Amino acid sequence: MTTTTIPEVVVLRLPLYVRVLAALEGRGQGVVSSQELGTLLHATPAQIRKDLSYFGRFGKQGRGYQVSNLLKELRHIMGIDREWSVVLVGVGQLGSAILTYGGFAPQGFNILAAFDADPSKHGAAIGNVLVQDIAQIKSEAQRLGVHIGIVAVPVSHCQRVVDLLVDCGIRAILNYAPYQPTTPPGVWVRDIDPVVALQSMTYHLKTAEDQW
Amino acid sequence: MTTTTIPEVVVLRLPLYVRVLAALEGRGQGVVSSQELGTLLHATPAQIRKDLSYFGRFGKQGRGYQVSNLLKELRHIMGIDREWSVVLVGVGQLGSAILTYGGFAPQGFNILAAFDADPSKHGAAIGNVLVQDIAQIKSEAQRLGVHIGIVAVPVSHCQRVVDLLVDCGIRAILNYAPYQPTTPPGVWVRDIDPVVALQSMTYHLKTAEDQW
Repeated sequence: MTTTTIPEVVVLRLPLYVRVLAALEGRGQGVVSSQELGTLLHATPAQIRKDLSYFGRFGKQGRGYQVSNLLKELRHIMGIDREWSVVLVGVGQLGSAILTYGGFAPQGFNILAAFDADPSKHGAAIGNVLVQDIAQIKSEAQRLGVHIGIVAVPVSHCQRVVDLLVDCGIRAILNYAPYQPTTPPGVWVRDIDPVVALQSMTYHLKTAEDQW
Repeated sequence: MTTTTIPEVVVLRLPLYVRVLAALEGRGQGVVSSQELGTLLHATPAQIRKDLSYFGRFGKQGRGYQVSNLLKELRHIMGIDREWSVVLVGVGQLGSAILTYGGFAPQGFNILAAFDADPSKHGAAIGNVLVQDIAQIKSEAQRLGVHIGIVAVPVSHCQRVVDLLVDCGIRAILNYAPYQPTTPPGVWVRDIDPVVALQSMTYHLKTAEDQW
């Protein structure tokens, strides 16, 4: 384990390593080469070796990586072998869908509370979570020991809500608004933006059309 | 314009170039250096120059890039200076949120039809889109000239729905199910997976905790 700075692009790739390794483990594969990992992750073997070298010496020269061991180590390094407490802000249609989405809890992300500014929503229970007044967020976040905030509010409210989460001591924010909020150093934001994903496919559609 | 193969990592970065350039144009900036673009995109100036060199000669040595010109060219290269026809499959809570989300149409992505297997949903109008029987998708997709499919069904249905979209001639799929469907060559899939985004932040949270 090391405290040197890991390039953010490497950090962003780690979940994909875990996903691929979990699939390999699931089908009983014991060892994987950097070549095979490269194919699965659309990277060169040299890139794979370089990525993993940031975290220690996993592979033996010419022998590949032990799948289960590498997976377990990466999970630990990434902090995903434990539980994290999450709050949601914004209980519109998107927020409701997030609260009822079954994919977070099995991965250790527990949404413990939800907040909205609209009084008509307060007291509602959605997916086992109680919707509370946004005015309560600071005391609740501190009482619950919250690590992560999910923002599902309109663009016009995004920055204000992010500021509020930061003020609550939250340092990791998953942002569904198509807006890049500014945050102080030491706070991480990831954007879920379907338009960006669509725009990275139209290049291929257009290129294919141009070639016909 | 070129038909050489552009590395997929570069294609994935293009929407971020567009977003950053649009913000620069919005505040009236005429010229941008590879240094400044690198700072905004968390990449080295050399990486920026290499990325853009795939698409032609945009910058003049030592003079930087013309913001408006580069933005316009990239939009054209990416095929986002035009309209694309989209269908959605799966009109649960997530699908409904997608249909009422206001961010697609202004970027040229027009959701023209939605499909679900549940008869109780057929005929409903959500966000100006009519929900139709999934059995109609092939004829409707061909009638509407659809380019892109959005998948918002449970994991257990994901592969079957993706196969159906491919069978409709659709070659770009935005997948919200936390499952990697297999597709034939020439079909592109992008996953919207909030768990992957969360997992790329816990590394930082954990590292910060470890250092205290």
